[in-house]
Amino acid sequence: MASLGSWREILQSAIQNHKHLKHSQHLQLATVRADGRPANRTLVFRGFVDGTDKLQFTTDSRSQKTEEMKHCPFGEICYYFTETWEQFRLNGTLDLIGSTELDPSKKTLREKAWFDSSPRSRASFASPHPGYPKSSEFEQPQLDPSQGAIDTFCVLTLDPKEVDYYDAKKGHRIMFKFLDEQDGNSIWSKQEVNP
Amino acid sequence: MASLGSWREILQSAIQNHKHLKHSQHLQLATVRADGRPANRTLVFRGFVDGTDKLQFTTDSRSQKTEEMKHCPFGEICYYFTETWEQFRLNGTLDLIGSTELDPSKKTLREKAWFDSSPRSRASFASPHPGYPKSSEFEQPQLDPSQGAIDTFCVLTLDPKEVDYYDAKKGHRIMFKFLDEQDGNSIWSKQEVNP
Repeated sequence: MASLGSWREILQSAIQNHKHLKHSQHLQLATVRADGRPANRTLVFRGFVDGTDKLQFTTDSRSQKTEEMKHCPFGEICYYFTETWEQFRLNGTLDLIGSTELDPSKKTLREKAWFDSSPRSRASFASPHPGYPKSSEFEQPQLDPSQGAIDTFCVLTLDPKEVDYYDAKKGHRIMFKFLDEQDGNSIWSKQEVNP
Repeated sequence: MASLGSWREILQSAIQNHKHLKHSQHLQLATVRADGRPANRTLVFRGFVDGTDKLQFTTDSRSQKTEEMKHCPFGEICYYFTETWEQFRLNGTLDLIGSTELDPSKKTLREKAWFDSSPRSRASFASPHPGYPKSSEFEQPQLDPSQGAIDTFCVLTLDPKEVDYYDAKKGHRIMFKFLDEQDGNSIWSKQEVNP
């Protein structure tokens, strides 16, 4: 994990300061489509993966971004805080944890994320194919609350390698770059730059 | 311009409903870097270019995105409204209008955008190179208010060809696709899709 005085500390403080706003969990993820054009959408931030700096989200295996990730496994998050005008641009590698995952710790992470999801959110994964023409006759299935993650449910993580922090009110900008991993701690460079 | 019942109407109504919120002018633009990775940042929406559906912004010729656009002239805007949870994903072509622009109407647009900018915003274009290590001894120059646009000042426009509208509260999603231009009016297809 990133150390003290890090982007992670500044980000956590921004999240704390905006906790009263429901939309403070909403951020934007940019990816690259198969045709090389950019894509951008709002995601709900589900916290950091325990013991790491990876940002966690949930997504549907049938969504376009899961296809995009096969061509370009990189993403950039723009996390903007509406009260303080602080912006975090987090660039890094994406990882998709789906129903065919073999890694035991990732399988556990996915199951946990499923049970942490609201009934409404879980039901969305049993809904008709996202982006397909509206299915009018569809009836929302009732999911058994004790049932584990269904096949379409995925956890998406972004592991940041570069963080561009900008405080637009103070005109203050800092670039953080991941350098190395030592004894489980991430080493980052930190440089104040012109806004 | 897009016709009645269009994405443009829905977007203008969302903007109107969020007018009391300063951050309702803030949206995120995704582009693709020269190395093929995505980039994402917050921009201030400056309205539509008169008589068109192009979204207008200002940017510094020294910013990374002007370089990125040379490799990939496409962008995707994610415009998210925090009260109603409405999201507009606007995908289209980017155009940069800088100091060497020859097209007379674009030159006029750039000059107008300069004089529409606040003194603070104008001064930022005379500031040290964005993203370079912080210049501590720098003194902000005073710009003559009657002086025209300085070289670093650019207008950036995005001409949408596809708009993915999603109302997350109502679970309502519509895909709009640009088809053709007829007598100065844009023809768009409109299809309700699964969220």
